Amino acid sequence: MSTTKTINLKHRPAGKPELTDFDFTTSEVSELREGEVLLRSKYVSVDPYLRGRMSDAPSYIPPFELNKPIASGIVAEVLESKNSNFSKGDYVSGMLEWKETQVANGEGLLKIDQDKAPLSAYLGILGMTGLTAYLGLTEIGKPKKGETLIVSGAAGAVGSVVGQIGKILGLRVVGIAGTDEKVEMLKSEFGFDEGINYNTTENMTEAIAKACPDGVDVYFDNVGGEISEAVLFNINKFSRTINCGAISVYNDTELPKSISVQPFLIKKSSSMQGFVVFDYVDKHPAGIKQLSEWLNQDKLSYSETIVEGFDNIPQAFLDLFDGKNKGKMVVKI
Amino acid sequence: MSTTKTINLKHRPAGKPELTDFDFTTSEVSELREGEVLLRSKYVSVDPYLRGRMSDAPSYIPPFELNKPIASGIVAEVLESKNSNFSKGDYVSGMLEWKETQVANGEGLLKIDQDKAPLSAYLGILGMTGLTAYLGLTEIGKPKKGETLIVSGAAGAVGSVVGQIGKILGLRVVGIAGTDEKVEMLKSEFGFDEGINYNTTENMTEAIAKACPDGVDVYFDNVGGEISEAVLFNINKFSRTINCGAISVYNDTELPKSISVQPFLIKKSSSMQGFVVFDYVDKHPAGIKQLSEWLNQDKLSYSETIVEGFDNIPQAFLDLFDGKNKGKMVVKI
Repeated sequence: MSTTKTINLKHRPAGKPELTDFDFTTSEVSELREGEVLLRSKYVSVDPYLRGRMSDAPSYIPPFELNKPIASGIVAEVLESKNSNFSKGDYVSGMLEWKETQVANGEGLLKIDQDKAPLSAYLGILGMTGLTAYLGLTEIGKPKKGETLIVSGAAGAVGSVVGQIGKILGLRVVGIAGTDEKVEMLKSEFGFDEGINYNTTENMTEAIAKACPDGVDVYFDNVGGEISEAVLFNINKFSRTINCGAISVYNDTELPKSISVQPFLIKKSSSMQGFVVFDYVDKHPAGIKQLSEWLNQDKLSYSETIVEGFDNIPQAFLDLFDGKNKGKMVVKI
Repeated sequence: MSTTKTINLKHRPAGKPELTDFDFTTSEVSELREGEVLLRSKYVSVDPYLRGRMSDAPSYIPPFELNKPIASGIVAEVLESKNSNFSKGDYVSGMLEWKETQVANGEGLLKIDQDKAPLSAYLGILGMTGLTAYLGLTEIGKPKKGETLIVSGAAGAVGSVVGQIGKILGLRVVGIAGTDEKVEMLKSEFGFDEGINYNTTENMTEAIAKACPDGVDVYFDNVGGEISEAVLFNINKFSRTINCGAISVYNDTELPKSISVQPFLIKKSSSMQGFVVFDYVDKHPAGIKQLSEWLNQDKLSYSETIVEGFDNIPQAFLDLFDGKNKGKMVVKI
């Protein structure tokens, strides 16, 4: 029986995760049974939401178990197949474990086409990232042509796609990011109308008001915290907020406090709604189709930060919380 | 030309309103012109939302002007009419000024039927109060039979109607109020399944969990603040919060802070939405019809606190913030 390098969760992080929360071990790769495939990981996705699964608080997906492998979106090559849906040499994407090689039963695995887009794209623009942007914006944001969309974490994997889809749909799009370089990229590479650097802006409320002269109709929120407070002062009547992420508070050890949103929501008949892409699985195929079309029409561009080496997966994950990625963070094995 | 006693806004309240923020004056009653009616106020509604209009911050309706009369829902008798829609002796309800007598042009005035319900009911169960409860719960809460509804400010004018409609619609209904007497009334008079006294309960989060063993699907929020924080810990996947009022923070002079709601909304794919009955004017007639039906079928009971005397309007308004009312607070002239 062969073995594989595996990354387990060693401790539940207290606050910001550290390298010592992860454990490199060697685990066995079982013999292939009927219906199973043997996979070699090629690209591993690291995502902020994984932080949530490292805690044991109840959430939309169960927490990771201690001393068991972490799992995330992975693109893998089929090395051997006893499942009629997959052949040796196919590439697949799915929720898989942080292992170099592993056996899977084929459930939830999607065969992907290397000729249509690079393999890593299936973890990003044509995977959960693109679907999160597309379905969050359209299903909850319900944007109407001519409205103003503001995006926090705009230079991130999801944010940069949200902004581009906003432009395709005919919105004024403003992005918030943390460096001048990222703000420049929002405009030059992703076609945002305006960008705001929250690290160099003293009064975010005023800066948002200036960038959104007609107010904010749709807010795609990836960060929560103080930036979202500043947006609240600029929301329009009947505005919609998509609560997609709250990376600014994920590592807080105490419950974070913010300005109470209720009076703002009442004054503006405004809504906020939590969005998780896994709630919309029935809309994923149509979403991937739409995203592929836009991608092939050169209407969507995406950026990736590709880190090399299985051993660097934990560090790549940690780097997300320091904003070291531009666009989707992926580890190439 | 005759004159009338009038109540003006003298100062914009800083924090909790005080009697000295109001000014009793005498103003002229103009001669009746074509299309106008002369009205004598019979019942005056005092409501928490009026506090918002006393500040000059932008909101869903414009602020009151200083040294001008305050306006609220009023039931009045037609003393004289030069408007073909109304005759002498009719009773009407509408947004009118805090005056003993006044001239109005008939716009927005609704003729009401004294035989169907007592006049004061048209300021409550068959007026904005009942419509707020009914349209907020159904349009935003979208409750499904068998779900659990929790109501804050449950013994108040809106809250007590929300709970009863919840029972009519087949929900488990839990109410939160501030005295044992009110909690008892929720159960005995309004048919709530459970009640919680927030003033004597040490751990509201646990108390809500106990009263809602299947979690909270719909939260009709009249108060905001700490009570709403405790509810957050008990919301179910896909739950909906109707943000109808935030009386607990209306008098705060600094922006109130609460636990950040975003991580909860994301974890539970949950929504919060501000509700203002004035946004749904097209649904008011059907709403009044439904409420009248339920009232005539004895499916709805309501309570009123009736204060007597025009001069006592400001004090009755102040008493709202000390929870001195049971149900709708109305001043009889």
